[in-house]
Amino acid sequence: MYRTHTCGELNIKDVGKKVVLSGWVDRIRDLGGIKFIILRDRYGVTQIVVDPESPAYEISQQIGREWVIQIEGTVSERPESTKTETQTGEIEVIVEKITVLSKAELPPFYPGDKVSEDLRLKYRYLDLRDKNMNKNLIVRHKMAQAAREFLNKHGFLEIETPYLTKSTPEGARDFLVPSRLQKGKFYALPQSPQLFKQLLMISGFDKYYQFARCFRDEDLRADRQPEFTQIDIEMSFVEMEDVINLMESFVRHVYGSVGIKLPEKFDRITYDEAMEMYGSDKPDRRFGMELKDLTNYFKDSDFKIIKNVINNGGSIKGFITRIPISRKIASELESYVKEFGLGGLLWFKLENGVISSPTNKFLGESYENISKDYNLKDGNVLLLAAHTNREQLNTALGALRLKIGREYFKDLEKGFDALWVVDFPFLEWNEEERRYVARHHPFTMPKNIDSKLEDIKAYAYDMILNGNEIGGGSIRIHNPEIQRKVFEIIGLTNKEAEEKFGFLLEALKYGAPPHGGIAFGFDRMVSIALKTSSIRDVIAFPKTTSGTCQLTGAPSSVDKNQLEELSIKLVDIKEGGDENE
Amino acid sequence: MYRTHTCGELNIKDVGKKVVLSGWVDRIRDLGGIKFIILRDRYGVTQIVVDPESPAYEISQQIGREWVIQIEGTVSERPESTKTETQTGEIEVIVEKITVLSKAELPPFYPGDKVSEDLRLKYRYLDLRDKNMNKNLIVRHKMAQAAREFLNKHGFLEIETPYLTKSTPEGARDFLVPSRLQKGKFYALPQSPQLFKQLLMISGFDKYYQFARCFRDEDLRADRQPEFTQIDIEMSFVEMEDVINLMESFVRHVYGSVGIKLPEKFDRITYDEAMEMYGSDKPDRRFGMELKDLTNYFKDSDFKIIKNVINNGGSIKGFITRIPISRKIASELESYVKEFGLGGLLWFKLENGVISSPTNKFLGESYENISKDYNLKDGNVLLLAAHTNREQLNTALGALRLKIGREYFKDLEKGFDALWVVDFPFLEWNEEERRYVARHHPFTMPKNIDSKLEDIKAYAYDMILNGNEIGGGSIRIHNPEIQRKVFEIIGLTNKEAEEKFGFLLEALKYGAPPHGGIAFGFDRMVSIALKTSSIRDVIAFPKTTSGTCQLTGAPSSVDKNQLEELSIKLVDIKEGGDENE
Repeated sequence: MYRTHTCGELNIKDVGKKVVLSGWVDRIRDLGGIKFIILRDRYGVTQIVVDPESPAYEISQQIGREWVIQIEGTVSERPESTKTETQTGEIEVIVEKITVLSKAELPPFYPGDKVSEDLRLKYRYLDLRDKNMNKNLIVRHKMAQAAREFLNKHGFLEIETPYLTKSTPEGARDFLVPSRLQKGKFYALPQSPQLFKQLLMISGFDKYYQFARCFRDEDLRADRQPEFTQIDIEMSFVEMEDVINLMESFVRHVYGSVGIKLPEKFDRITYDEAMEMYGSDKPDRRFGMELKDLTNYFKDSDFKIIKNVINNGGSIKGFITRIPISRKIASELESYVKEFGLGGLLWFKLENGVISSPTNKFLGESYENISKDYNLKDGNVLLLAAHTNREQLNTALGALRLKIGREYFKDLEKGFDALWVVDFPFLEWNEEERRYVARHHPFTMPKNIDSKLEDIKAYAYDMILNGNEIGGGSIRIHNPEIQRKVFEIIGLTNKEAEEKFGFLLEALKYGAPPHGGIAFGFDRMVSIALKTSSIRDVIAFPKTTSGTCQLTGAPSSVDKNQLEELSIKLVDIKEGGDENE
Repeated sequence: MYRTHTCGELNIKDVGKKVVLSGWVDRIRDLGGIKFIILRDRYGVTQIVVDPESPAYEISQQIGREWVIQIEGTVSERPESTKTETQTGEIEVIVEKITVLSKAELPPFYPGDKVSEDLRLKYRYLDLRDKNMNKNLIVRHKMAQAAREFLNKHGFLEIETPYLTKSTPEGARDFLVPSRLQKGKFYALPQSPQLFKQLLMISGFDKYYQFARCFRDEDLRADRQPEFTQIDIEMSFVEMEDVINLMESFVRHVYGSVGIKLPEKFDRITYDEAMEMYGSDKPDRRFGMELKDLTNYFKDSDFKIIKNVINNGGSIKGFITRIPISRKIASELESYVKEFGLGGLLWFKLENGVISSPTNKFLGESYENISKDYNLKDGNVLLLAAHTNREQLNTALGALRLKIGREYFKDLEKGFDALWVVDFPFLEWNEEERRYVARHHPFTMPKNIDSKLEDIKAYAYDMILNGNEIGGGSIRIHNPEIQRKVFEIIGLTNKEAEEKFGFLLEALKYGAPPHGGIAFGFDRMVSIALKTSSIRDVIAFPKTTSGTCQLTGAPSSVDKNQLEELSIKLVDIKEGGDENE
C-alpha cells in the first residue's frame, strides 16, 4: 500500500499514529542538521522531519525537489512556535523510512515559477503541479458537476451526439476528417451539436444536455481555442421566457457551487439598447460610462466637422468618465477610435468648476450646457465623437469605453454583472459574400419574418457575464415552411438547402415540437469564475494561437502510407524537411 | 405556456383539474362518434376524449398520428370498466380546446414498427420515438450519472483532454484531421486519452476520469463504431489490487443504478486459465462446458490422426454438453471448427447408458473411460478435437463452445456473470509486421521484463461481463528506463521512440508517481444492461458498418475550396459524380 493518508489530511487528532504518505518533494530544508521535507500531493502538503539519527537520513541526503517518495513515520505535534495555520500546520511526521518511487531530473522550472507561457505549455505536466493550476481544474470539475446536478434534477437527459458528422459550411470553417472506407468523402467535426439536439427534440426527448466538444477551424484570436467545450441544452414545448428563467437559475447554481453569488434576477436589455448605451452586444456594465446621445447640444454649432456630420444626418455621442486626461492621453485615445473608423475624438474636462478643452473656444457653449444638464462633477471628463453612421459611432465609442474601463477601472472588474441581451436582429450583412447571413444561426425562429430584412428580429438571447457572452441561444424554427423561407432569405437555393439540410427539412415534416435552447461556453464560464487572464489556464492541455499543442507537438507530419490509405495527397507543400515523407 | 403537466403525470388525484398538455398523437380511435386521442411525450401517454359536442371536435377530425398538438381540458375519472393499470390509466382528459403545433406527413414508419435497420437509421428521429429506444437512452443517461456519482464521491476529478491530438500509429489506425494553419500537418483524433491521463498523473491529479469519445479507423466489424465512448479512469499511488477492488465497486454501483445486481466479489482467473478452460480471454461462463484436457485417455490409441497429434506433442481437448447431436449437426460443427484450423471434430453421446459415436469402434475404450471418470449422464454429448498447437486447439474449441452456448443455451444468457482476467502475456506476435507488439499497450508495466519475451506477463486486467470485455486496464510504467526498454522490445528505434513518445519519456524524467487505471467501453456496458442485440441501439446517432450516418449522409463530398484551403488533393478518385467538385 502506497499510503495510509494523503498529504492534506493529517492533523492534531492523528498525533501518535503510524502513517505512510506518498508524494512529491516540494521543498527540502536543512536546519541544524535536521532535514525538513515538504511532501506534496493534490490534497495538500505535510512536513516530514528526518533526524540525523533516523535510518532514513542517508537516503534523505540524496533526494531532490520533485522526486516522488514514500515515507513511513509517526505523526507528531509540532513545537508550538513552528505551528502554522495551514491544513496540516499543527503536525509533522517523524520519519522512519523513505522509499524513492521516482527520481526527478532538474526540471526546466518548478511548479509556480514565473516562466514564459510557451515553456509552461511544453512542460504542461510541471505547470499543472502548481497549486493555482491545480485549483483551476478542480474548480472546473466542480462547476461541471454542479451543472449536471442541476440539469439532472430538472429532468434533462445527457445524450451524446456524433463527433464524426457532416460538413455544412455555414458559419465557421469546419475541421475535416477524410474517410478511408469511403474514399474521397469527408466527415466534419461538429461546430456544435445544433442539428442533432433539434433532432432529439423531434424524437421527443424533451430536455437534453451535453458537455459537447466543439470544433472551429478559425484563425485563432488571442483567447480562442480550435476545440472548446460547450454545455449544450435544448428543451421542447418552451417559450423564450421558460428558457431564460430556467437558465438563470442554472447559471446561478453553477457559480454558486464555487462560492460566487450572482444576482437573483438578471437584467434584460435589447440588442438596440445595448448598442446605444454600451456600443456592444456584450456590455460590461461594471464600468458605468453609458453612451449618451448629445447631438442636440450641437445642432447650432458652426464647428465644421460637427456641422457636416449633423447636416448629413449623423450623431454626436459621448460618455462621462474620470481619467487623468492630457493632450497626450487624448491623442492616444483618438488614435484608438480612429482604428474603428472615427474621424477624431473631442473631449472636455471640468476642473474647479471650469471647463477646459482644446476645442473650448469653438464648442464651449455646448460643453457648458452638457456639463450643467448632466450635473458633471469636478474631475469629470467627457469624451465625444461624431459620425454619420450611428452603428459605427456606437461600436467605436463602445470599444473606447471598454479600453478605458480595463485600463483605469480594474477595481470595478471584481464584481459580477450578469444580464441578458435580447431582440437581436435576425440577419446581418456579410460584405464578403454580398448576402445576408443569419446572425445567430439559420435555425433561429424569426419574430417578424415578413418585415423588411433589416428589421427582422430573432427569438434569440445571449447571457452576458462581465462583458463576456457566456451563453447564447434561441427559440428554433419547428415549421418546415418557415425553415425553407429562412434558407431562401440567406441565399441558399432550394437545391443547396436540400443538399446541406435536407435531413432537417425532412425531419420537420413529421411532427416537430416547439423547442429552444442555449449553449454555454464552459471554458469561458470557468475562466470568469477564476478570473484567469486566459481560457488556456482552465484547460488541461490547450493549444497555442497557431493551433499547436506544445507538449505533444500536434499537429505533426504523418507517414506517407497514412495519406495513401486515405487517397489524399499534399499539394504545394515542401516535403524536404519532413523525414516521414 | 405549452403545458401544465406532462403526459405521464396525471392520476386520480388530479380529477377535476383544468390542464394543458402538449405531445404527439400516438393513436386516434373513433368509438361511437367519440374521438379518443392517445397523447404521448417522453413521460408517458394520456387519453384525451373529444366529444362531438366539444368545440375541439372539428379540429380533431383533421389531425393524424404523430401530429404535435396542445390540448386544454379537464381531468376526469375513467369509467371503471375502461381503467387500465398504466401510469395514467385511471383518468382521461375531456378536451375543450385543441391547438395544432405541428402537422405531420405520413411517416415512413410509426415508432416501434418492425422495419429494416437502414430505414430506422435514416429516420432515426422517428425510431427514437419508440418507447424502447427512448428507454435505452434514459438507461444510458442513468448509468452515466451513476458512474459520475461514484467517481466524484471517491475523489476523482473529471478532466477533459484534447480531441485534436498527435498521430502515434501504434495500435489501431488513426483518423486524421488536416491542419489549415500549419499546412501539410495533421492532427489525429485520439484512440483513447491514454497518454494524457498518464500526464495528468505526473501532474499530481491523483484520481482522474473522463467520459471520452475515442476514435479508431478500423474496418468495422458487425458491432463496432468508428467513434465510441469510454469511461476513462486513472489513479496514482495504487497497485493492481487497489484498482481492481475499487473498479468492482464502481461497476456494481453503475449496474445497480438500473436495477442490475452484480456479484459482491468478482472471480479472478488468469489469462492462461481462461484460455485452457474456455478457449477465450473473455469467457462467458454462464454456459458451463469448460474445456478439459483429455490427452491422457488417448495415449495408447492407434487411431491415426490422434496418434500423430500425440506423437507430435499435441493435445486432445473437449467439453461436455447436452445438444441434440446427429451426423448432420456434427458435420456442421466440424465445418465450424475447421474454420479455426482444426482438422476435424470427434464426438460421442451417452444414450441409455451406451456410448454411440461414428468413431466408437476406434476410440470406444477411451470414450468409456472418459464417460466413467467424468460421470457423464444420459444425453450428454462430448465434443473433442486434437491439435499440435494447443493455443489453436483452445481457441477453436472456445469458439465452438460459444457457438453452442448461443444456439442451444440462450436461456442461460439471462443472468450476469462478472469476472476478472489477469496475468496477460505482455507481448503478442504480429505476423504481418514480423515483430512483437504490446498486447495491452506499450505503457503497461511488465511483471518480469527480463524473462524470455514470450514469458513476460503484464500487470494488466480485463473485466469480463457475460463474455464481453467491458473494461481493460493496467498498472503503467512510471520509470523512463523501463519505458525505453519496452519501446526497444516492440521494435521502436530510439529515434522512433523519441519522435512518437518523446514527450512521455521526457515527462517520466521529472517525477512520475506509480499509477494505473482502466477504461470501460460505455456503449457496451449499456448494451449489456439492456440486452440489446447491438450497441447501435444504445447510441443516439450511430453509424453503419461502412461508417455512414444514414441520417445526415456523413461522410460526404466537400467543396473543392475546402480542400484547397487545407492544401490537400484527392488522388485516384473519380470526381465526375460529385457536383461539388
